[in-house]
Amino acid sequence: MKTIRISEEEISQFSDRKRVQFINSLSGFKPCNLIGTINGEGNSNLSIVSSVFHLGANPALLGLIIRPDSVPRDTLINLRETKACTLNHVNQSIMAKAHQTSARYPKEISEFKACGLTEEILEDFKAPFVAESNIKMALQFVREEKLPENGCHFIITRITDVYIPEESYREDGRVDIHKADTVCVGGLDTYYKTERLHRFSYAKPSSPLSILED
Amino acid sequence: MKTIRISEEEISQFSDRKRVQFINSLSGFKPCNLIGTINGEGNSNLSIVSSVFHLGANPALLGLIIRPDSVPRDTLINLRETKACTLNHVNQSIMAKAHQTSARYPKEISEFKACGLTEEILEDFKAPFVAESNIKMALQFVREEKLPENGCHFIITRITDVYIPEESYREDGRVDIHKADTVCVGGLDTYYKTERLHRFSYAKPSSPLSILED
Repeated sequence: MKTIRISEEEISQFSDRKRVQFINSLSGFKPCNLIGTINGEGNSNLSIVSSVFHLGANPALLGLIIRPDSVPRDTLINLRETKACTLNHVNQSIMAKAHQTSARYPKEISEFKACGLTEEILEDFKAPFVAESNIKMALQFVREEKLPENGCHFIITRITDVYIPEESYREDGRVDIHKADTVCVGGLDTYYKTERLHRFSYAKPSSPLSILED
Repeated sequence: MKTIRISEEEISQFSDRKRVQFINSLSGFKPCNLIGTINGEGNSNLSIVSSVFHLGANPALLGLIIRPDSVPRDTLINLRETKACTLNHVNQSIMAKAHQTSARYPKEISEFKACGLTEEILEDFKAPFVAESNIKMALQFVREEKLPENGCHFIITRITDVYIPEESYREDGRVDIHKADTVCVGGLDTYYKTERLHRFSYAKPSSPLSILED
């Protein structure tokens, strides 16, 4: 297998589209989520994101990157206004509809309706969930930061409620997101399901790993 | 399929280990990478991370979360000292060795040697690459921020060189990381390979998606 090297200088000479496709492939497989929000006038919004990441367990925090607001970003506007959003895992059965939410709809059009997904209100939480999603969370807006490097918005949220299928929940706290049919994404547009390889024991310097069965 | 709700209050009553396992499952499938660094005395370090995320294509930036330095974090110390690290995708063939790097080795022990992975120097870049990894990058440290919410370190890096298998590289810039045997991780300890479902066309409000073959 021949390895090729691509330097920063070569990358800078790529077309914008090629550069975006290239760099978006490099971090590895990415999580695939739908962010649900609503504005003060009751217009809902749904947006697919691959930039959610674990920030800490106690308090339970998730991070999220939203692109520069040089064009209006409804998710960001709504999040600032209501301080609330939902996070909904994309399952295989809604993958195409989820991808379609990345189209630039005008703000008065709800991506829920335009893309054929169902708004669901749970426990009076302000922001709408995706009914078809198997794993979903209520998130409270904590803080945002505009990154001077490129104008992206780094958003910190706190998990306030989690909804999961009973059969995916393990007594030790693990959630089997593979069983819940969650998919992941490579680059900008290619969706993958997963096949479990191994679960490993907690690593210690003095002892070899063992393979755990469940 | 019965859905259960787990509230913030219930999560706060979990044991620390249970909470960590639970919250780490929720963001979705995570990328799986090894970060290679070296200190001024020539001691190398290798550390598995699931917190790398795309921050922008122009400039080409990757973000990374490192846990609080209440205990010494060799990756963070070395990154501050040399301003350089490598990012190496974990492939199926090195998955167990990669997991073993999460054990707490003393700083004078290199995880490369302890875990059976090979240091590789490319183009005189300061930090060591993982020879067994199929996709690897040289990263320049840009900036760090300690998050007041939990003491985690948010690290911004710039991609300066990319090494990929020729057969995984597409003319339009996409890198087929599935073909390169990259794995992903669920929670803290469960590794998955992927199976491609679909690649979708660029979404537009006015036209239905099409499925792209390559």
